[in-house]
Amino acid sequence: MRLLAFQNKGQPALGLRLGQEIINLTEQGLPATLDELLRAGPEGLASAKRAADKARTRLPLAGLQWLAPVQAPAKAIAVGLNYVDHAAEGNFEPPKYPVLFHRFPSSWVGHGQPLVRPHVSTQFDYEGELVIVIGKAGRYISKEKALDHVGGYSLFNDGSIRDYQFKSAQWMMGKNFDNSGSFGPEFVTPDELPAGASGLKLQTRLNGKVLQEANTRDMIFDVATLVSVCSEPFALQPGDIIIAGTPAGVGFARKPQVFMKAGDVCEVEIEGVGLLSNPIVDGD
Amino acid sequence: MRLLAFQNKGQPALGLRLGQEIINLTEQGLPATLDELLRAGPEGLASAKRAADKARTRLPLAGLQWLAPVQAPAKAIAVGLNYVDHAAEGNFEPPKYPVLFHRFPSSWVGHGQPLVRPHVSTQFDYEGELVIVIGKAGRYISKEKALDHVGGYSLFNDGSIRDYQFKSAQWMMGKNFDNSGSFGPEFVTPDELPAGASGLKLQTRLNGKVLQEANTRDMIFDVATLVSVCSEPFALQPGDIIIAGTPAGVGFARKPQVFMKAGDVCEVEIEGVGLLSNPIVDGD
Repeated sequence: MRLLAFQNKGQPALGLRLGQEIINLTEQGLPATLDELLRAGPEGLASAKRAADKARTRLPLAGLQWLAPVQAPAKAIAVGLNYVDHAAEGNFEPPKYPVLFHRFPSSWVGHGQPLVRPHVSTQFDYEGELVIVIGKAGRYISKEKALDHVGGYSLFNDGSIRDYQFKSAQWMMGKNFDNSGSFGPEFVTPDELPAGASGLKLQTRLNGKVLQEANTRDMIFDVATLVSVCSEPFALQPGDIIIAGTPAGVGFARKPQVFMKAGDVCEVEIEGVGLLSNPIVDGD
Repeated sequence: MRLLAFQNKGQPALGLRLGQEIINLTEQGLPATLDELLRAGPEGLASAKRAADKARTRLPLAGLQWLAPVQAPAKAIAVGLNYVDHAAEGNFEPPKYPVLFHRFPSSWVGHGQPLVRPHVSTQFDYEGELVIVIGKAGRYISKEKALDHVGGYSLFNDGSIRDYQFKSAQWMMGKNFDNSGSFGPEFVTPDELPAGASGLKLQTRLNGKVLQEANTRDMIFDVATLVSVCSEPFALQPGDIIIAGTPAGVGFARKPQVFMKAGDVCEVEIEGVGLLSNPIVDGD
């Protein structure tokens, strides 16, 4: 299944996409957000399928006002330096243990919405990444059982304000500017993808030019390892997201450097997961 | 005013403390959480005062089941290395720019509730700190206007799992174990304290023994500076908290090292702000 969150007459709604059409699940009595649907456990996703089977009307996908798939995850954990080539381009050692930071929900927008370059910086960088969405709660999840806890996958542009990221050794500020990242377009259940979303081509393009090109099989810590490690400090909850890290090719490490500016369009695409596209605007 | 959140017959409620008694503001028609009261702006706090003036009944403070003052802040920003002597004891340079990380709400409990030492570590450390609670939203707040955005103050025990904190260069994991920190006991409005909560004695005691002793005037970045800097990446919102950093004396830097274990009681006290006390238990 491919589920998506959207604005319907000013209200959030949950949809299921079939090709170029969507079924409004909220109109069928389901929750208005994926956050709530996931909290209902496997029965939530099963009810989405049943509602879709019964639905008689479909909306066109064209012109949809997308929202981020999960709107207020309790935890959004981001992984740094999870591809060998990206660690190298930033002069970091490849990590022996996952490097984890976080993003506040205020730091991202949905598919098609503008990414904001703040007036205080010109170093607005892109990072294309796979997102793991937790479907089942758990603590100290073993690597062997980790994939059972994955509800689905999506995409993230882990937009970073580089000068703020490196003002101190903790990256928090540069990773959390309001509306500086994006998440979407949709939520894809694991049955639509290879196990652990491995072996998928990833590309990030700026104004059509390919700047990142990699394969998810090259992640240093794979999906199962990330879910397992992230469940040690805290119980993972349905709707929590793990933003799995970016490969080489970020703008900051290029010679000459490439940064995003108003008028640009940044796209992140992962084979089978989708295409996340956002225009860049100047803003606060 | 001194406001507090508590459990009343299984439901959250908001109280105003007068000496050894409290007035149940929620019973007077006010919101059940400080989160919601703060979102109503200055009128929210004014309505708390009016409701307290009208109330005829009081509850005894003794036996109260405390909750953290703010239960789900959109952002909880913690400050690292904000006292020269604490930076030095950890072999860090005193920072020239605030070192910021964050804590998830799942990582803290209220006054009197147990702090949990996880079975995966024995390095459970205390850190006594002042908390700044934002009362008025703002972005790019100047240092001069910063104190107008402070709704009140409280205390935090920034409990840290040291081995996890240093597994990578990003501190997130070690600062976010479930129920490893505490926040409270109450929310104190600025009129009860010196400007910017400066000049207040801070102590952390483990089983009655003083292990941290400092004065809030020795913070490298003061309250106004922290509010100003923290409002650059994102708009601060009412209820957001800034956990202002700990002085020297943490257990990790002692010779021999001191860590918290089941049966211990850890207290953080700041003159005029309150006394936050928590027992330690073993747990997941």
